[in-house]
Amino acid sequence: MQTTTSQDALKRLSYIEGHLGGVRRMIEEDTYCVDVLKQTYAIRKAIEKLEGVLLEGHLHTCVVEGVKDGRDEQVISELVDLYELANK
Amino acid sequence: MQTTTSQDALKRLSYIEGHLGGVRRMIEEDTYCVDVLKQTYAIRKAIEKLEGVLLEGHLHTCVVEGVKDGRDEQVISELVDLYELANK
Amino acid sequence: MQTTTSQDALKRLSYIEGHLGGVRRMIEEDTYCVDVLKQTYAIRKAIEKLEGVLLEGHLHTCVVEGVKDGRDEQVISELVDLYELANK
Amino acid sequence: MQTTTSQDALKRLSYIEGHLGGVRRMIEEDTYCVDVLKQTYAIRKAIEKLEGVLLEGHLHTCVVEGVKDGRDEQVISELVDLYELANK
Repeated sequence: MQTTTSQDALKRLSYIEGHLGGVRRMIEEDTYCVDVLKQTYAIRKAIEKLEGVLLEGHLHTCVVEGVKDGRDEQVISELVDLYELANK
Repeated sequence: MQTTTSQDALKRLSYIEGHLGGVRRMIEEDTYCVDVLKQTYAIRKAIEKLEGVLLEGHLHTCVVEGVKDGRDEQVISELVDLYELANK
Repeated sequence: MQTTTSQDALKRLSYIEGHLGGVRRMIEEDTYCVDVLKQTYAIRKAIEKLEGVLLEGHLHTCVVEGVKDGRDEQVISELVDLYELANK
Repeated sequence: MQTTTSQDALKRLSYIEGHLGGVRRMIEEDTYCVDVLKQTYAIRKAIEKLEGVLLEGHLHTCVVEGVKDGRDEQVISELVDLYELANK
């Protein structure tokens, strides 16, 4: 993984961890479920963004290199598997 | 698009169109909403599968060819745009 | 289903059917997959909107009436099943 | 929130937090992106399950009570807002 990608990913992870800690406090303090759910939706969006960052990095590096090295079958079938996993 | 991909995609489209016609009849005959919703979820899944078929075909052909032809920037940024569009 | 809900739903269905017909033509004319996928994503969004309309109608009518008639267990467990189905 | 719901939710949160810690280590140790993405998809699924638990608790308690107390408009429009937020 390129350093810029992993640093961006780690920053996003810290944000998500902090946000989850906030949800934990809300549940412990018996906050109204609707307000808790709004926060978990925001966390889910943040994880999707993190996945976007990781995927973009992967496409620009490993996928391009893999195809140029003649390993297309492998890198493409990994992408297809990821797509199916993400939509299961 | 390869012939096998487009034939598979057209067959899936016919199925989706038939399924949508069924939902139309259900609404016209005032079927219980819960039963209508179960059908629309099935249609959404069928569209996701169709997208999977199209994407897989695209990865195996245009993306691999694009990278080998030195047009990586273009084909990869198209994939990133698609990912963002799919998750918006 | 209330008449306003079913009329809105049928209008949205017609739009989705027209949009699917466009995708069929694109595939038959061998349009670039990326452009086809952009259209299928738009169709998926339109189906989600249709589901929103159906669900909103259902909540305002059958769910409220069911709870007032003492059939909470039934209407609530139907909603939970729908939620699980939608996220499967 | 009922005690059973909040205890279940807190247990799921702990699992998600642990899983996120694992993803952090994977990124720090420069694990192959595809393997990291498989883990973030699993986390996203776990958050969806947590949301299901919170929503189910909310439907069985606040929504039923709200409708019985004549506050249908409020509790139903909150659900519609949540649905739209979850699908945005």
